[in-house]
Formats: sequence, structure tokens, C-alpha cells
Amino acid sequence: MGINISNFLSSKLKNRKLIDFQDLDHIDGLSISTLSANLYNTNRDDLVLFYFREGANFASVYTQSKILSENIKWNLDQKTKKIFSLIVNTRNANTFTGEQGYKSMQTLAELVSKQLNEKQKQDEDNPRLIKTKNIMFGCTGTIGETFPLEKITTKVPELIKNIRYTQNKLIWMKAALGIMTTDTQPKMAMEECVIGKTTVKIYGIAKGSGMIYPNMATTLGYIFTDADLSNDILKKLLKKNVENTFNAISCDGDTSTNDMITIFSTGKAKHLKVNSVNDKKIKDFEISLNKVLLNLAKRIVADGEGASKFITIKILNSKSELDAKKVAFSIANSPLLKTAIAGEDPNWGRVIMAIGKSEAEIKINKLSIKFGDIIIVQKGKLHSSYNESEAALYMKNSNIEISVSVGSGNKNFTAYTMDLTKKYVDINADYRS
Amino acid sequence: MGINISNFLSSKLKNRKLIDFQDLDHIDGLSISTLSANLYNTNRDDLVLFYFREGANFASVYTQSKILSENIKWNLDQKTKKIFSLIVNTRNANTFTGEQGYKSMQTLAELVSKQLNEKQKQDEDNPRLIKTKNIMFGCTGTIGETFPLEKITTKVPELIKNIRYTQNKLIWMKAALGIMTTDTQPKMAMEECVIGKTTVKIYGIAKGSGMIYPNMATTLGYIFTDADLSNDILKKLLKKNVENTFNAISCDGDTSTNDMITIFSTGKAKHLKVNSVNDKKIKDFEISLNKVLLNLAKRIVADGEGASKFITIKILNSKSELDAKKVAFSIANSPLLKTAIAGEDPNWGRVIMAIGKSEAEIKINKLSIKFGDIIIVQKGKLHSSYNESEAALYMKNSNIEISVSVGSGNKNFTAYTMDLTKKYVDINADYRS
Repeated sequence: MGINISNFLSSKLKNRKLIDFQDLDHIDGLSISTLSANLYNTNRDDLVLFYFREGANFASVYTQSKILSENIKWNLDQKTKKIFSLIVNTRNANTFTGEQGYKSMQTLAELVSKQLNEKQKQDEDNPRLIKTKNIMFGCTGTIGETFPLEKITTKVPELIKNIRYTQNKLIWMKAALGIMTTDTQPKMAMEECVIGKTTVKIYGIAKGSGMIYPNMATTLGYIFTDADLSNDILKKLLKKNVENTFNAISCDGDTSTNDMITIFSTGKAKHLKVNSVNDKKIKDFEISLNKVLLNLAKRIVADGEGASKFITIKILNSKSELDAKKVAFSIANSPLLKTAIAGEDPNWGRVIMAIGKSEAEIKINKLSIKFGDIIIVQKGKLHSSYNESEAALYMKNSNIEISVSVGSGNKNFTAYTMDLTKKYVDINADYRS
Repeated sequence: MGINISNFLSSKLKNRKLIDFQDLDHIDGLSISTLSANLYNTNRDDLVLFYFREGANFASVYTQSKILSENIKWNLDQKTKKIFSLIVNTRNANTFTGEQGYKSMQTLAELVSKQLNEKQKQDEDNPRLIKTKNIMFGCTGTIGETFPLEKITTKVPELIKNIRYTQNKLIWMKAALGIMTTDTQPKMAMEECVIGKTTVKIYGIAKGSGMIYPNMATTLGYIFTDADLSNDILKKLLKKNVENTFNAISCDGDTSTNDMITIFSTGKAKHLKVNSVNDKKIKDFEISLNKVLLNLAKRIVADGEGASKFITIKILNSKSELDAKKVAFSIANSPLLKTAIAGEDPNWGRVIMAIGKSEAEIKINKLSIKFGDIIIVQKGKLHSSYNESEAALYMKNSNIEISVSVGSGNKNFTAYTMDLTKKYVDINADYRS
């Protein structure tokens, strides 16, 4: 394309370590447009529009918080089978903004649908009628601040004017950058797979835990595919595959009012019809979707606030997956363990502590604990060959794997988290200074 | 006594800010003895013996962890109505020490009971027979290290020889210091009250969240009274009054394998007989017991690892006390909020987040939030007079009070915690360096 992504990124990210990216390119039926609406009073992109010219099937999962942002309320209220546009701003969470926040969604949906309808008439042979209910919103940023409606409406014409019907890796990068808050790295993932004999694409971008003004560790994840799948199938696939991906990560145990994962299918790939979620034809698709979700989820943890280490916690041989998950998150959310890992200390006593407080069923005489390949506890006893200095050496790795076999059954769960560093406190305490 | 407590403390604590102490003195029927068994390879006191020459009634509450230290297993296994001695070491948690750990308790109990029986024969007109089951243990410190039985048994004769039958404030201070790990301040509290017309004493010492080698944030709390109350009454009083005191504090949401609160009653105060926990005569005693427990619990939080601020979280107008507690601890355990408070940021958005994720029933249109006297949210909306700079000024206080009215009923719960500072990470991550 004549554009050097690394240079582009370096200029945006300054001195920040890059991670490997896959090159996302064109997905039929999707257009992306980004710009700066000056929400941060800088020229960084902070407004991203995704446009489906023929509409897209979709499914969402939202935060479990009892307090929902106004954009999520809007999304939940719309009874529609197709989405034509998703608009994400990355400065204002639109939470605790009350009527002004909700009405802003209405106003924006009216404006965007009106202008997209004009575009439809201009560009399409068979223009579709886009309604306000076909517009969806993602928000992340400060809670309780008035929603910056005017700043955004002013920019809508330009945002729509910028729409191009062919996407390239640059626009994906801009979209991934445009939804970031205190993320230090954009998060993208892709897979190709087959439905029947037809190749389909699954692309995804996400943002993770972080805030630049304040407030939240909002997770946003958007998945796009050219497969042709019904809303019902998408919903079932998403719900199932979020469990061991986005629902398996924890940065600090806090939950945002704005969390949102949505999958869109443009239906442009000409594969054989898929009749149900159990249709064997989508086996490969589901595996690939899981990979994309897991890839994005891991990138969120790896880029967690202040993270210096990526931690995988495998719980094995549990009575139930729920029990395994309880143990995994009791370990993943323990500040004592996470600080120990930041200090490169093989403090397995804190793993014991976290297992003990997890409320899950464990058989202590069958309990085993490994750090990497190093056996620490076996059959409920400190292993005779355990050597603390060997374990201390292992802790110097940037990827730490803790495996715990709890001996109460045959179910497993793997969680992902990062360490708790002074930088986490810096980012979250001192951002005003 | 000719001893200057402040000088004594200064020499022990070095440059550390002292807090007000009440002067604990003699309680009939109790003796205390402390010394260094060199468990830290320094001359600090690390072994404390409490001796009840006529035995004491008692009741304990222990950690809810599924993994118990060997000393707690020992304590639970002894079917006895009287305790003659409690021995606390503050270096080895005796957790995951297996048979060696448990047998060490047996060996120690045999040695201590034998030597105390010799002392009984020497000192008492009617010597009592002390059995191993009358000996109780408290442990805190590193998990998984072999229990230092020999270092301790060697010192038992001296520990028993040091017993004096009159206690003074110095010996209480030494006991409170002797059970500390990374606590920076000893924790003592006392109340006097009446049962009928007889004055009785309630004294207590505790240690809080901290570790010096590693491993745990163990809470130990020991309450002593000269009241004459049955084990059954003590149990009921303790269970009930631990709920809004020791069970209302959180430093980091982690739970130790060694937590233990025990109350001992020597029965030496000659008051009218108390027949049940509902006896009106012990109303005043219960109020005072609650004060002692709360006083100690608050001192633990105030001295929490790295704490720079003491935080009180009041949840009002909840459907149930359980729901109120869920909200209180969701707030008290939020790393995002605790770091914000460390940074003196009135980040009420994080309070919203913590309320939302608490799983408790809340009425958003009745929700109100105050920081101190500053109304931030009222009836589910940002208060019109809310002024962020006024709130920022409030956050400079070292005592922060957050009140949340959730509007779903008429039950309340108050929790106590501290902020999350870089020093917390320092203490827990970098202790090896």
C-alpha cells in the first residue's frame, strides 16, 4: 500500500514496544472511518465509525454490572435484526449522564442514519432505508461527564465523507488505535477458515484495561466476518466462545459499566447455508472465532495497566468448570500473589492462600502446583525435589504459567492475568499530577 | 513502673509514628511471657506465651479458608473446655508443613503441659492437671517451611521461668510487639464495664496484615477478660461481634490460612452468674467487647501494608445486611478505587463501577453517594452543587469516609479498608531485594 505500518505506529505510539500484528485487510460489506473529534483536546483519533452498506447480522454480550452506560441501554433498547453502523468514542463513557446521555444517542442515531441514507441514495442501486434503531454505539472513558454531543455531531459529516469501500491494513490500524484509552498497543487479530468449501474471514479489534482521563477498565471487542450467519447463530457462538476467552481474563478484578463484545456478519461470503449452531459446516468457523477472541483477550491482559508479566493460570481436575473458574480467578485476582510475581518471587504460599479462599471444592491430599514445569506441590505435599532458586530463575520469564490440579474431578479452566506493579498504582493514582 | 513506654517503643520501632495506646495492666488469672527464640535470626521477641494458672473458658473463630494451618487443625481437634496456655510464634505459619507441622504441635503441647504441671506443683495449693489438649497455638509467617520445633522447644523452659503473676503495661506491649510480623505498630485495646455491679476488664491485642519473610496477611486477635462466662456464651458473643468488627475489615481481599480470633475468660471477677447470652447483665459487657474488637480491627486497617489513608465505607438503606456487605466489600476491595484514593482523587466513577459489579440489589434512581459531607450523587443523579475541587480538597484527609445509600431497604453495613499505594507493591513484591 506504500505505507509503512511500523513507522506509522512508531509515530503514534512513541518508544513503545510493538507486538506482532497480523495484517487485516478487506472484508466485503464493511467500511471503516476514523477521525479526531478533539475529545482529548489533541489531534488523536477518538471517533471510529463502522459502516455496513448492506447491513450486518450481529450479536452482542454486555457487562454484567448492574449499572449500565447510556449507550449500552440504547443498544439494548433497539429491536432490530440488522446493524448498519457502529460508532465508538473513546473519551466519554456516557455513564451516569442520565437523560442527556441517552438523548445524545438518539440525536446521534438520527443524524448518522439521515446522512447514511443520503449516502445510500448516492452510492447504491437499491438504497436501503437506515433507521435510528440500526445504529449502535460503543463508549469508553470518563464516567459522569456530560456527553460531548456537539463535538461529535460536528464531525459526523466528515466521518461519513471519509468512508471508502475498500479497507486496508492502515484503516484497521487506525480503527484499533482510535478506540484505545490508556492501552499502549492497538489490539487486532484475524483468522481465515472455511464454511463448506468457501473461505471466510474473521477479523477483530479490541481495547483493554486502561483509562487516560479516568475511569474504567472497559473492554471493547468488535469482531467482523463476511460469513452469512443468522443473529441467533451468532449469539450462540459468541456466548459460548466468550466464556474461555474474554471471560477468562482479569486485570484487576474490576468490571466496567461499558464492557461490550459484538460480532457482525456481513453475509457477503457465498457459502452454503448454515441452518443451526450445531451445523458441522461451522465447526471450523467456531474454532477460528475462538482463536480470534482468545488472541484479542490475551493482548488485553498483556497490555494491562502497568503489566510487566503475562500470567496463565491453569486449573485442572476440578469437580466442575465453575469451581475451576473460582480457583483460577481467586488466584488471578490476588493482589498478594500478583505483587509477588511482579517481584519475581516464586511465592507459592500465596497460591495456597488463594486456593484456600476460593470456596471451590479441593482435595488437599491430591493437590498439585507447578510453576512452568517445576513441580512445587504434589499430592498435597511440598515436592521433595523442589528447589527455590530454580523457581526464582523461572520467575524471571515474562510469561509465567501456574498450573494447579485440585483433584476433585475432571474439569479444567484457564485464566489469564498480569502482575500488579508500582506502575499500575502510578497509572491509576497519579494521573492528575 | 520506672519504665518509659515511649522510649521502649521508640527503640523497638525506630522512627515510626506512634499511635495512642491505652494502658493495659493486670487481669486476674492471666500471665504473659515473651522472648526471642531467634526465629528471625535477630533478638526480637518472636514467641509469646499466655498462661492461665486456673485455666480459662474460651471461644475461637478461625479462617474460612479451605486450607488450614496445622496449628489451627490442632486447636480444632482438641476437645476441651479449658485452655491453660496459648503459645504464639510469629515466624512460621505452620501451613503446608504436613505431619511434621502437626506433630510439632503435639510435641510442644506435651513439653509445655509437662513443665506447666511442674510449675503448678510448685506454685499452687491445689495444683491442676494440665493436659496437651489444654494447650492452644497461634502461628503466622511463612508457608511451607519446616516448623522450627527445636528452636522453640529449647526456649520453652526459659519462657515458663519468665512467667510473673502480675502483669503490667510493659508485658502487654511486649506481647503485642512479639506477635507482629510486618505490622509497623503494636495493636492493643481495652475497655472496662460492669456485669451486675462488678467491674470487669476486657483487654485485647492483635496483629494485622503483613509479612516479613513472606507470606500472608494473617489476622490474629486475642481477647482476655476476667469475667466468668461459659464457653457457650463466649462463642455466641464472639461470633456475633466479629461480624461488624474483624469481619468488616479488608486490606487487600486476601484471606490467610492462619486467621484466628480467640476470647479467654479467666472467671476471676466475682460477679453474679450469667445464665445465657440474652442475660441483660451482659449487655454492657457485649457493648464493650464490640468496642475492643472494633478498636483492634481498625488498628489493623490503619496499619495495613503501605496504607496512607484509612477508609470507612458506609452502606445505607440496603435490602439486607448481606447485600450491604456485598456493596461495601466490592468498594473496599476495588484496586481501581483504592489507587485513586492513594492519589487523592475523588474518583466517584470508580465507586459507581464497584457498586455496579457488586451483585447486590440497588435502586439506581434512589442511589446517593457522599464523600465525607460532600454530596456527589443524589437520587441517581450527579448533584447539581457538586464541585470537584471541593471534593479533591476533602481527599487530602487521612481519614476518608464514603457513604452510599442504595435505596433498596433499611439495612446498613460499614466496612473499613485502606488505600492501595506503591508502598504496598514494594512491601509485597520487593521484599527479597
